[in-house]
Amino acid sequence: MNQELRSDAEKIVRRAIEAVKPDRAVQEALRDFRPGGRVILVAAGKAAWQMAAAASACLGDVLTSGVVITKYHHVQGDIPRVACYEGGHPTPDAGSYTGTSAALALTENLSEEDTVLFLLSGGGSALFDKPLIDSEELQDITGQLLACGADIREINTIRKRLSAVKGGRFAQWCAPAQVYSVILSDILGDPIDMIASGPTVADRSTCEQAMAVVKKYGLRLSIQAEQYLGEETPKVLDNSTFRVTGSVKELCSQAAAVCEELDYEVHYLTDCMECEARDAGTFLASILRSHLADNKKMAYIAGGETVVHLKGKGLGGRNQEIALAAAKGLAGIHRAAVISVGSDGTDGPTDAAGGYTDGDTATELAEKGLTVDAVLAENDAYHALSAVGGLIVTGPTGTNVNDVTVALLGEV
Amino acid sequence: MNQELRSDAEKIVRRAIEAVKPDRAVQEALRDFRPGGRVILVAAGKAAWQMAAAASACLGDVLTSGVVITKYHHVQGDIPRVACYEGGHPTPDAGSYTGTSAALALTENLSEEDTVLFLLSGGGSALFDKPLIDSEELQDITGQLLACGADIREINTIRKRLSAVKGGRFAQWCAPAQVYSVILSDILGDPIDMIASGPTVADRSTCEQAMAVVKKYGLRLSIQAEQYLGEETPKVLDNSTFRVTGSVKELCSQAAAVCEELDYEVHYLTDCMECEARDAGTFLASILRSHLADNKKMAYIAGGETVVHLKGKGLGGRNQEIALAAAKGLAGIHRAAVISVGSDGTDGPTDAAGGYTDGDTATELAEKGLTVDAVLAENDAYHALSAVGGLIVTGPTGTNVNDVTVALLGEV
Repeated sequence: MNQELRSDAEKIVRRAIEAVKPDRAVQEALRDFRPGGRVILVAAGKAAWQMAAAASACLGDVLTSGVVITKYHHVQGDIPRVACYEGGHPTPDAGSYTGTSAALALTENLSEEDTVLFLLSGGGSALFDKPLIDSEELQDITGQLLACGADIREINTIRKRLSAVKGGRFAQWCAPAQVYSVILSDILGDPIDMIASGPTVADRSTCEQAMAVVKKYGLRLSIQAEQYLGEETPKVLDNSTFRVTGSVKELCSQAAAVCEELDYEVHYLTDCMECEARDAGTFLASILRSHLADNKKMAYIAGGETVVHLKGKGLGGRNQEIALAAAKGLAGIHRAAVISVGSDGTDGPTDAAGGYTDGDTATELAEKGLTVDAVLAENDAYHALSAVGGLIVTGPTGTNVNDVTVALLGEV
Repeated sequence: MNQELRSDAEKIVRRAIEAVKPDRAVQEALRDFRPGGRVILVAAGKAAWQMAAAASACLGDVLTSGVVITKYHHVQGDIPRVACYEGGHPTPDAGSYTGTSAALALTENLSEEDTVLFLLSGGGSALFDKPLIDSEELQDITGQLLACGADIREINTIRKRLSAVKGGRFAQWCAPAQVYSVILSDILGDPIDMIASGPTVADRSTCEQAMAVVKKYGLRLSIQAEQYLGEETPKVLDNSTFRVTGSVKELCSQAAAVCEELDYEVHYLTDCMECEARDAGTFLASILRSHLADNKKMAYIAGGETVVHLKGKGLGGRNQEIALAAAKGLAGIHRAAVISVGSDGTDGPTDAAGGYTDGDTATELAEKGLTVDAVLAENDAYHALSAVGGLIVTGPTGTNVNDVTVALLGEV
C-alpha cells in the first residue's frame, strides 16, 4: 500500500464529510436566525438528534421547546427542553407516529410571532408522518404501487395526500407561525419537494395526477382513501422559508478544496454519479491510467450514489465495490489510488464507510489468494478490502449526503 | 434533436476517424522510408488491402512485389505487383494459410540490402499464420485453453510456439533482410508483442512459461506439439524496426483537436475505457449534468473499448448502448449530447458505427412508446436509435483502433 496516498485520501474524505456534518450545516444555517416570539424546534430524520443538539447549542434559551424524531439508537443524550422520540426506518412504526403527534401538539395554535424551526434529514419520510388512513391500508397501497413498478414521483403523489404532514401540510398546520426549515439533502440534484415528501414545501403534484396514478395501476382503495386523494395539498405557503444544506455538491466541493490544499490538480467530474458501482471504479481507474504521462499530482472527484446489482452472497457496499473494481485497473501503478466513502459512514450492511485501493492492492489481494473479479462476482468487497487494510471506517457520521469518490495520482 | 450539436458531434468523430485511417497512417509512416534493395510488401489484417494500396501509392515502382492477406470481401481491387488473398477471421482457414505461405515464399532467401515492408492491422492473428502442427490439433489446444479460463497472455505464450510466423519468427525468417513494420494497433495500451502475436517483434515469453501453462491447466498435447513448446522464440531481432500507429490515443487526440477547433473546452478523460457500455454512458451524462452551470461549451473525450453483457435479444452494439444510456441522464437538457462510434465503422452486428443522443432523445423515444431502460434491457439500441435518427452510419472505415465517445455541452 502507498501509505502517503492512503493518508492523503483519508484526509480528503474525512475533512469533506466533517464540513457537511449536520452540526456544521445547522450552525451555518442559523447564523442570521433572529426569531421574535416563541421558537419551537421539530427535527426529523436520521440526523435529527445531531441537528437539534447543534441548534440548541446555537440558540440556547431562545429555544422554547422541541421534538426530535429519529431512528432507533440514534438519540445520544438529553437536549434542554426537547423531547426525543425514536421510530422505525425505513418502515414507519408506532414510534414514528407518536413522535410526529408530539410535534403536531407542540405546534398547534401558534401565533404569527412564533417560529417553528424544522430540521429535516434523510429518513424523514418514514420518521415524520401521520397517516390520514389506517396504517395497514397505507402499507397495502404502498405495496401495490411498488409491485406495479410505479416510480418514486408517482408513489409520492399518492402518499402526500394520505398524510397529515407531507406535501406542505405541516407548514400549513403551523400557520400563522413562521416555519424555517433547514434541509440536509440526500437526494441527488436536491428536488426539495421530494425530500421526506416535503412537509414544509408547497406541493407541485395535483389531485388529477393522483387520480391518474390510481387509474394507470388500477389501485384498490377504501372509500376513505379515495376521498383523501381528492383533497388538494397546499400550493402556496407564505409562512415557509427553507435552506437546503449539506448536499452532495457541498461534499464534493469540500473534497476538491482539500485536494487543492494538498497540491493536487483538481478535476471535478460529477456530483450526480448514478451508474453501477464497479463500472464507476473501472472508469475512474481508466482515467488515471490515461494521465500517468502528465507527470503531476492529479485528483478526480465524483460524487453521487451508484448502484450495486447483487448477485453474490458476500458482504460489501457500493463504495467498497467502486474502490475494489478500481484496483484492477490501477494494478502496478504505485502512484494511483481510489477512495470512495458514504458520507453517513455506513456503506451497505457493513461497519465500514467505504474503501481505499491503490496500485499495490491487486498484488496484495493475490497474496491472499484473491482476485478482484472473483470477489466482485461474490459481492464480497468487505472481506477482501479488510484482508489488505483497504476498509475506511469512520463510524456513523450523523450526516447523509450521498457518497464521494476521489481518484488520485500522487507524487511522480 | 439538437441539429447543431448533432452536426458538431458527427464532424468530431468523422474527422478523428479520418485521421487514423490506414492510408493516412501508412503515408505518414512511409514519409522517410528510403529502402536500398528490393522491397517486398506483406500486409495482413482487416485493413491489409487499404494499407497495401496506400503503400503502393506512396512507393510506386520502388515496390518489387507483395502479398495481401485480409478478410473475405475486403479486397477492393488490384494493386500493381501485389497478390491479394482472403482468409477466415476470427478463425483461420485454408485461405489464411495459403496467403501466409505465399508471403513466406516471397520473403525467402532475401539479401541484406532487401527490405520487407510488413503492414499489420487488427485480425492479423488469424489471417497471418502458419501452424507448425496440424491445424485441428491447434484448434483443440486453443479450445482447451479457452475452456479452462486461460488469459490472453497465456494463450499467446502457447500459440506463438506452435506457429512458424508468430512471436518474432517472421522477422527471423526474413533475415538478413531488413523488416520495417507499420502496426495499426487495436489493442488498448499498445503492447506490440500482443498485436497479432507479434510476427516481427522479439518475444518476451519463454519456454518455461509455456510449460508452466501446460502444467497449470493440464493441457493434452501431441508429442510433436510438446516438442515445439520447448523451442525458444527469438529474443533479439536486429533486422526488425517498427512503428505503431493509428492507436486509440491518436483517435482521441484527433477528436480533442477537432473539439478545440469548434471552440469546446476540452477535457481528455481516458483512452483506455473498459467498463460496461451503458454505465459509461450514464457516467458521462452525469458529468455533463454537473457542469451545466459552468455555462460554456465543453467536450469530454473518452476512448477505449467498453463491454456489453448481453441479456436481451435485440440488435445493438457497445457504442449504441453508450449513447442510448446517456439519453436518460441527458433528458431535458437541450444543450447536452453524447456520440460514440467504433472507428471501424461497425458497432456490434449492425450496419451502424455507433449512436448519437441528446437532451431531446428521451422525449422522442417516449413518442414512439420507448424508454431507455426497456430498450437496454432488450439490448435493442439499434432499433431505438434508428427510430429517433440517432444512428451514426459511416460504412466500413478500413481502420480499427477501438472506439471514441464524445460528450458535449453546446452553446448556452
